[in-house]
Amino acid sequence: MSERYRVGILGATGMVGQRFVQLLAQHPQFEVTALAASDASQGKRYAAACTWRLAGEMPTGVRELVVQPPRPPLDCELVFSSLPGDVAREAEGAFARAGYPVISNSSAFRMDKDVPLLIPEINHEHLQLLERQQGNERGGFIVTNPNCSTIMLALALAPLQQRFGVEACIATTMQALSGAGYPGVASLDVVDNVLPFIAGEEEKIEMEMLKVLGRYDNGRIAAADFKASAQCNRVNVADGHMAAVRVKLARTVDIEEVRAAFETYTSLPQELRLHTAPAHPLIVRDERDRPQPRLDRDAGNGMSVTIGRLMRDAVLDYRFVALSHNTIRGAAGAAILNAELLLATGRLKH
Amino acid sequence: MSERYRVGILGATGMVGQRFVQLLAQHPQFEVTALAASDASQGKRYAAACTWRLAGEMPTGVRELVVQPPRPPLDCELVFSSLPGDVAREAEGAFARAGYPVISNSSAFRMDKDVPLLIPEINHEHLQLLERQQGNERGGFIVTNPNCSTIMLALALAPLQQRFGVEACIATTMQALSGAGYPGVASLDVVDNVLPFIAGEEEKIEMEMLKVLGRYDNGRIAAADFKASAQCNRVNVADGHMAAVRVKLARTVDIEEVRAAFETYTSLPQELRLHTAPAHPLIVRDERDRPQPRLDRDAGNGMSVTIGRLMRDAVLDYRFVALSHNTIRGAAGAAILNAELLLATGRLKH
Amino acid sequence: MSERYRVGILGATGMVGQRFVQLLAQHPQFEVTALAASDASQGKRYAAACTWRLAGEMPTGVRELVVQPPRPPLDCELVFSSLPGDVAREAEGAFARAGYPVISNSSAFRMDKDVPLLIPEINHEHLQLLERQQGNERGGFIVTNPNCSTIMLALALAPLQQRFGVEACIATTMQALSGAGYPGVASLDVVDNVLPFIAGEEEKIEMEMLKVLGRYDNGRIAAADFKASAQCNRVNVADGHMAAVRVKLARTVDIEEVRAAFETYTSLPQELRLHTAPAHPLIVRDERDRPQPRLDRDAGNGMSVTIGRLMRDAVLDYRFVALSHNTIRGAAGAAILNAELLLATGRLKH
Amino acid sequence: MSERYRVGILGATGMVGQRFVQLLAQHPQFEVTALAASDASQGKRYAAACTWRLAGEMPTGVRELVVQPPRPPLDCELVFSSLPGDVAREAEGAFARAGYPVISNSSAFRMDKDVPLLIPEINHEHLQLLERQQGNERGGFIVTNPNCSTIMLALALAPLQQRFGVEACIATTMQALSGAGYPGVASLDVVDNVLPFIAGEEEKIEMEMLKVLGRYDNGRIAAADFKASAQCNRVNVADGHMAAVRVKLARTVDIEEVRAAFETYTSLPQELRLHTAPAHPLIVRDERDRPQPRLDRDAGNGMSVTIGRLMRDAVLDYRFVALSHNTIRGAAGAAILNAELLLATGRLKH
Repeated sequence: MSERYRVGILGATGMVGQRFVQLLAQHPQFEVTALAASDASQGKRYAAACTWRLAGEMPTGVRELVVQPPRPPLDCELVFSSLPGDVAREAEGAFARAGYPVISNSSAFRMDKDVPLLIPEINHEHLQLLERQQGNERGGFIVTNPNCSTIMLALALAPLQQRFGVEACIATTMQALSGAGYPGVASLDVVDNVLPFIAGEEEKIEMEMLKVLGRYDNGRIAAADFKASAQCNRVNVADGHMAAVRVKLARTVDIEEVRAAFETYTSLPQELRLHTAPAHPLIVRDERDRPQPRLDRDAGNGMSVTIGRLMRDAVLDYRFVALSHNTIRGAAGAAILNAELLLATGRLKH
Repeated sequence: MSERYRVGILGATGMVGQRFVQLLAQHPQFEVTALAASDASQGKRYAAACTWRLAGEMPTGVRELVVQPPRPPLDCELVFSSLPGDVAREAEGAFARAGYPVISNSSAFRMDKDVPLLIPEINHEHLQLLERQQGNERGGFIVTNPNCSTIMLALALAPLQQRFGVEACIATTMQALSGAGYPGVASLDVVDNVLPFIAGEEEKIEMEMLKVLGRYDNGRIAAADFKASAQCNRVNVADGHMAAVRVKLARTVDIEEVRAAFETYTSLPQELRLHTAPAHPLIVRDERDRPQPRLDRDAGNGMSVTIGRLMRDAVLDYRFVALSHNTIRGAAGAAILNAELLLATGRLKH
Repeated sequence: MSERYRVGILGATGMVGQRFVQLLAQHPQFEVTALAASDASQGKRYAAACTWRLAGEMPTGVRELVVQPPRPPLDCELVFSSLPGDVAREAEGAFARAGYPVISNSSAFRMDKDVPLLIPEINHEHLQLLERQQGNERGGFIVTNPNCSTIMLALALAPLQQRFGVEACIATTMQALSGAGYPGVASLDVVDNVLPFIAGEEEKIEMEMLKVLGRYDNGRIAAADFKASAQCNRVNVADGHMAAVRVKLARTVDIEEVRAAFETYTSLPQELRLHTAPAHPLIVRDERDRPQPRLDRDAGNGMSVTIGRLMRDAVLDYRFVALSHNTIRGAAGAAILNAELLLATGRLKH
Repeated sequence: MSERYRVGILGATGMVGQRFVQLLAQHPQFEVTALAASDASQGKRYAAACTWRLAGEMPTGVRELVVQPPRPPLDCELVFSSLPGDVAREAEGAFARAGYPVISNSSAFRMDKDVPLLIPEINHEHLQLLERQQGNERGGFIVTNPNCSTIMLALALAPLQQRFGVEACIATTMQALSGAGYPGVASLDVVDNVLPFIAGEEEKIEMEMLKVLGRYDNGRIAAADFKASAQCNRVNVADGHMAAVRVKLARTVDIEEVRAAFETYTSLPQELRLHTAPAHPLIVRDERDRPQPRLDRDAGNGMSVTIGRLMRDAVLDYRFVALSHNTIRGAAGAAILNAELLLATGRLKH
């Protein structure tokens, strides 16, 4: 533990920033030594600057750290970023150019052609793109994770694509409030209500999903070539995104094969026994009324996607409901798992 | 007004029963003269038997009516029914055989081959089936309306089918709590939660939609022949069902044609100026975040379906979001509109 | 109707501003001819500037009005104000000095010694203070209404004070989200949660209640001399403030007298048949589980306070639960009723 | 661990029963060896009989236990009971007479004069009452814990009573849904709503609080002699009861003394380091908007009461807000702590 990797968090006072702080508090490989934010909290102790909005107390180790501006240098070897979109591009680029590995949850660089959009279970071979991030000196680079809903959907589709081929996917999401940050969604917009709109979300899902599930081919990512359709809704749930999914497969399979593809799915993070990797990336439930956000979002410590209501569909081939924790598997936990993979595969060095 | 048609309500103490009472309180053509229920309220004054769960006060006209068993005879010329499924079949059948027109919101007879599954805007020609209800003496018959979600979806599809043809429809619903009656959904199941299951709902929608949109042909209904897929969820909303819909059309049309098909849709109830018929069965909204249950459920006094977020879809052809009031257009109001059509077309007589 | 009084609304785009617009749309005595706001909406048509957040459509009459800065002159004879506290003092003062009657829902002037804190049922004699507003030329003056919770509590206490004397009042409020405006309360703060704090609210209630229930005495208001304690909570309710109240009376009375004091309470607005005045300022319900926000907030078109659960209390003398609509009786409706009283008593002139 | 005490749970399928199962799954001193319920689940394996409604999975150790009728004999040395009130009296009495220690969360025996109403921090000397439970053979007896709200309020009052004396307490509760069990509160009763009524709750609090805080005196409990007033409301929160409290003390104290009394409060369970005892029975928070149910209910693993918003009160002396987890400290955890105290003080024997 004395040799833990020293990490900084950009956007440390936001909802995802707080999740980073919480998840890293007891991490065996990473130690939070720097916090930065783009807001008025700069220059204050984290305990004073940040209104802690997660259950439980702010971890003691970070309380006295002074919040820095999100500019290099920072007292750390790597940065996790959950900066808002508008400042992320400049700040993350600056850190990468200054030699820091940047593990980002922001959308700024996700679709850049040389930047991996990484889900360790699915596309670890995309990390070969890092060799193409030439502008950065001294080993700096940027690795991103997808949008919260995309992660959940891509994980659900990955074994189907791998085994059967996917030709089309239609997803209708019911997304949690924490996905919009704080203050985020106004309470009057969700009490006794559903919002059928989340800015930019449908486009992100449709685009990112195809990159994530794409194939690394000679220095670039060839996007997956199925059709993807997303309709996104905001519902009155604190944490836990849910999606009703239909999928058309490339060949005829029976429902038991589909179920088995989900249930037996494991990949590199499980083989490497990465600290944050869940034993089961996908959990299949057979009760007729699961998954549910409040009951299932913390499955696998928030890193498993729960799948239920699997059945044949009259229009496409199969339908099911997927659920995962949007600020753990969908954001901070995703980035931490990415960093663990980089460390385990020798891409991070003290 | 002295000549109003005297009507009874079966299932008068339930959520839909109370809507019947509320909507009929000031109706120019119908007057509630009998109330019946299958529960422990029999023999009590309605004011004492029924815990009124709608905003505002119980209408004065029904307070002193004594709740009867749901068996003929009742002191009325017609019955509206919202009896629970398990008792509806026997009770409604008995009323029809005894000569009463039965206008039912229950599911018991909906799929019977001689029973119209009526939405006046869509399939008034299905009323020709009434000639085939021969077992009933003295003019008794049964007319049903579809399930609440089906009504909303069928109304949205009707102009598309009429003008362009529909080849497939995928709907994901987010349904309100009042659809389950009272006590219905346990609060612990929806606080900070979504339930991805409503018993029997997906099957009903997929089946009923094809009958509603089917064609009357020589004494029977030929079901519409497109493919329908429904995934149903219960969300933390009091009233107002919402559906995210994708549709595949039989021919290529541009989005303005689709929009115009919705917006200009009117039909027989509008021509006949039926009391409960909305001026616009479908209202199209262009704001990017509408429709919303709390803001749009009462459009057209709860009888209009509001459509928004219309756009092209990557998998099927178009997608949109539909919303309507599930206990007005989706239940009590639907049945009342059915009765108004029967009256206007000479099928009810004093 | 051709002679309606021409009114302006300051703060027209906010939640209370929209209620003003809604309630005045069909008003027999007032016609909205000017709209002003302190935000970025200035210079735009109201239909473009304002995202309408109430159920139903924005009234047609105001759609084309161009939003003005909240400074005189405005094209109207009187202004209603729901400006935010920070700009209200300057703006309302300017209108009064320029000769406009200002009917304000803002807190800026409520506790000024020459400004009436008016609830027409309770303290219309406080309007004698208007003679002391000497700095204003040409008949300008300011009349305020209390904070939303204070109005409800003061109305409930008024008949008790009048008949029996009040020695102490302890109120615990459970307040609706619309009281905080839009965007107001963050959804993450109320989903599966209660907030035990509303900035400034407890102080306002404790202070305003004593002024409202005070006595006009020779050019000043002598505050009521009972002790008042308020604890305020924000709950997950869209509209409708609720309060659990205990009260100590100045003399021994039995519960039937208390009940009768509530139930028979009427005052000058009822005698004058003011348009917005409810027939019953206080409605007493005997069901053991009423009042409830969703069922009772619209009683008396949102202008009645509903009282229930009246019983003896072991510490003070009596306890009960009060409920009223916080943006109608508690804000826009309160100000409109104030204006109606001014008009009926000859204090407004064309 | 091989010598763990073998326990049974009566009412094992209910909400509190499931909490017992969850909290006992890893308990160092108790092992669940029998499950009983009064409902249709008898004769089935627990995994089949019980729909698990807590986050996470049903513990593996109990899945295969067959649910028994709640009648002795059961294969265990002690029973925890959360039977519904109507069957608890007979069943618990039968177990006590048959020689079982009965640690009950039910209300049936709470006010019996020979039955301790135990909160280990407050009134462990009440256990002397056990000597008076003579009708039970072979060491059987009944120990109860109070109602969920009473436990929270009594813990908050205990240090005040001890140090300063309490003369009156006024509490207004905002209670969570899980307190009503499952299905419990209908969702339509709490969406966009608050219920100002919980059957029997106000009476229970006012009565039980005085017994809990009473003094053991020569074979009986002399009830505390202050006045207590409770108004109870149900709010849209899954877990975590909250109360707005005013208290009148027997002598003048300054606010820092009150704060210190809360903060430094510990008692016998802390000295004995009982497994379930929190380090701090009372946690004081100084943020102006805490405690909040979602953020604070799990403090001290759900066994601490969080107190905030402490300030002087204009009517009584002080006011504050208290919060605790209603099914842990307020029910299953309370009973388990009671059993731990019995074990630690030699009142349970293998």
